[in-house]
Amino acid sequence: MIDVDDVRDAESVVGEMAERTPIRRSRRFSELTGSELYLKMENFQRTGSFKVRGAFNKIARLTDDELERGVVAASAGNHAQGVALAAREAGSQAKIVMPKGAAISKVDATQGYGGDVVLEGEDYDEAYTRAREIEEEEDRVFVHPFDDPLVQAGQGTLGLELVDQLPDVDVVLAAVGGGGLISGVATAVKAHDSDVRVVGVQAEGADHARRSLDSGTVHELDEVSTISDGIATRSLADSTFEVMRDRVDDVTVVSDDETADAILKLVERHKTVTEGAGAVTLAAALNRKLDLEDETVACLLCGGNIDSNVLSQVINRGLINAGRYLKFTTVLKDKPGALVEIATLISRHDANIYAIHHDRMAKDVTLNAAEVEFDVETRGREHSNRIVRALEKAGYDIDVVS
Amino acid sequence: MIDVDDVRDAESVVGEMAERTPIRRSRRFSELTGSELYLKMENFQRTGSFKVRGAFNKIARLTDDELERGVVAASAGNHAQGVALAAREAGSQAKIVMPKGAAISKVDATQGYGGDVVLEGEDYDEAYTRAREIEEEEDRVFVHPFDDPLVQAGQGTLGLELVDQLPDVDVVLAAVGGGGLISGVATAVKAHDSDVRVVGVQAEGADHARRSLDSGTVHELDEVSTISDGIATRSLADSTFEVMRDRVDDVTVVSDDETADAILKLVERHKTVTEGAGAVTLAAALNRKLDLEDETVACLLCGGNIDSNVLSQVINRGLINAGRYLKFTTVLKDKPGALVEIATLISRHDANIYAIHHDRMAKDVTLNAAEVEFDVETRGREHSNRIVRALEKAGYDIDVVS
Repeated sequence: MIDVDDVRDAESVVGEMAERTPIRRSRRFSELTGSELYLKMENFQRTGSFKVRGAFNKIARLTDDELERGVVAASAGNHAQGVALAAREAGSQAKIVMPKGAAISKVDATQGYGGDVVLEGEDYDEAYTRAREIEEEEDRVFVHPFDDPLVQAGQGTLGLELVDQLPDVDVVLAAVGGGGLISGVATAVKAHDSDVRVVGVQAEGADHARRSLDSGTVHELDEVSTISDGIATRSLADSTFEVMRDRVDDVTVVSDDETADAILKLVERHKTVTEGAGAVTLAAALNRKLDLEDETVACLLCGGNIDSNVLSQVINRGLINAGRYLKFTTVLKDKPGALVEIATLISRHDANIYAIHHDRMAKDVTLNAAEVEFDVETRGREHSNRIVRALEKAGYDIDVVS
Repeated sequence: MIDVDDVRDAESVVGEMAERTPIRRSRRFSELTGSELYLKMENFQRTGSFKVRGAFNKIARLTDDELERGVVAASAGNHAQGVALAAREAGSQAKIVMPKGAAISKVDATQGYGGDVVLEGEDYDEAYTRAREIEEEEDRVFVHPFDDPLVQAGQGTLGLELVDQLPDVDVVLAAVGGGGLISGVATAVKAHDSDVRVVGVQAEGADHARRSLDSGTVHELDEVSTISDGIATRSLADSTFEVMRDRVDDVTVVSDDETADAILKLVERHKTVTEGAGAVTLAAALNRKLDLEDETVACLLCGGNIDSNVLSQVINRGLINAGRYLKFTTVLKDKPGALVEIATLISRHDANIYAIHHDRMAKDVTLNAAEVEFDVETRGREHSNRIVRALEKAGYDIDVVS
């Protein structure tokens, strides 16, 4: 089991290679939670996530001979980028096995950091198996994403940085996938002050650590499903379970909708982009999964590598969930100006029309009756309902899509 | 014409009320531009833009009697929020006239800061006229967004902060709408070091300052059109023109596509959200609108208040422009498994399918031939072309939509 000296050793390496990421107090989220809430902006880290800390620490300890032979890792995203960059900066070379469905942007980023990407396997487990084969075949050093004390200690430097920036912190929230981040962070934070509560956050569809702590043994899920791909793991390692049992106070769980809402709020209120795993901590705080009243709270925003198209979907989903996006279809009457009439009615209720879809029937709209879909921006659910009622009162048949 | 002492006076007020926003060196953008490129993250400012600086400085100078009577302003967005917040914190009350089409999120934010919002007028000019009427009718103090030395001096505190954080800066890029920001910033920066180049950036569809500096008189546009609504003004004021002629070295112009691309790059590379006006400076740097080779450059990211749905559209547009999003339709043959066949072909070329649209014909697909639309993520234009050629070679008729 790692201890704080391992983390301090890691800091001597990681401190030089990684960014010291900023911490920001959030007025808005402090109000919403009744706490003093701080965001640790690790999404600003090099490669866009904390993973590069562990990779720097691991690869810096390799012998010249090992560096010469190169490293190998399996990852669908952040660990891939961290290992590729750390290997390049150490004068070594990384081969990274990524599952075939990996996001192209992440494959490109990994290659951009000098990684030799092998696309193989349907999922992470198959990519992992292939990486272990390559370890044997090519005599490379395997870099595990979390089941390695040097990697855990490297991630722990985030905890040292945090308590240096915010010595009075009462509660630290950290995402849990394989448990590498929280193992390192809990070790650093508890050494600073054993009274600080360290709470893990998992996605509902990948909540193995919650179950493991409840049952007292490592729980392995058969499958995982969450938009937070960075923490979509099936289980902890024995090594991370051991640290968590000793130093983590609690693990809480958030739904994907709660995470999507937190991503949207971070975009709108803090102009900052996080991936799912980066936003689960704020989601837990905002949805009051634990008592934070009057506490000084640090939410680790541990990564920002969200695919742009996913971000765009999350934003739309968030707007729909908040009732701020009203999509409905209606049949327009067979007369000129029908579209103007309904559009006028909508805008008289202070709603904005984003889009009108006629699909392929568009040119028939003023000749025959035709179904038309409206996308409308509203103030929220109540406002949406008011608009629908007003349109119905005016004689339109409204079919609300979302 | 304001001078640096006005800006220093402003700092004594603004320094207490506004955030000192961070500055970050960008490795990636430095490489792309051959310069040392820094991002001044004013999108992290309270209310999400620099406008609050000028509003704080103006409203802090009001007499008790004026504060009692309240203030009034016209704005479609950032100035509205800045004035509302500044008035509230000074113990006064703001009435803000916003044009009817103003984004609901901005109306809500202004109300959230305690502003009394009046929705009136089809555009900013009509809202402005109404605000001047209210000034008379209700004996309120009008707060102009830029034609006011106290407002300009307030915005200038951003320049003092910048040269304090980056004393060796060679080039400062600032967005130009009414010219309030650049007047203050140029005044502060030139007083620090008269050799620093201060360059304004405008949107192609609102390039009046560029024309004004060329012709030597204030140029007024008949209409403006740009996604950068924060700088969609028709002209400078005489006061800002005078300062710009004296202290601004050049004004350059970027297209909306260049701005959208810069917004997307800031999201992907720096995990940060900017509005159009906040990204035009980076757009100018990335598109080499001026010589930056080996210079230390500061791009002011002056605001982050982009509507979430606009952000989502900009991301999609950016992906399409970069060729990373391929949308095409094809006619699927009349046999079972036709969809699987083409999907397999696409994934064999390492592209990911986001969405398949059958519209209302979906249930006919395996019965009759039917047109189907594919949205596919690719590595870029060349990759897209390769996929289209491969599908055509396999006998599909491909109609590329974008």
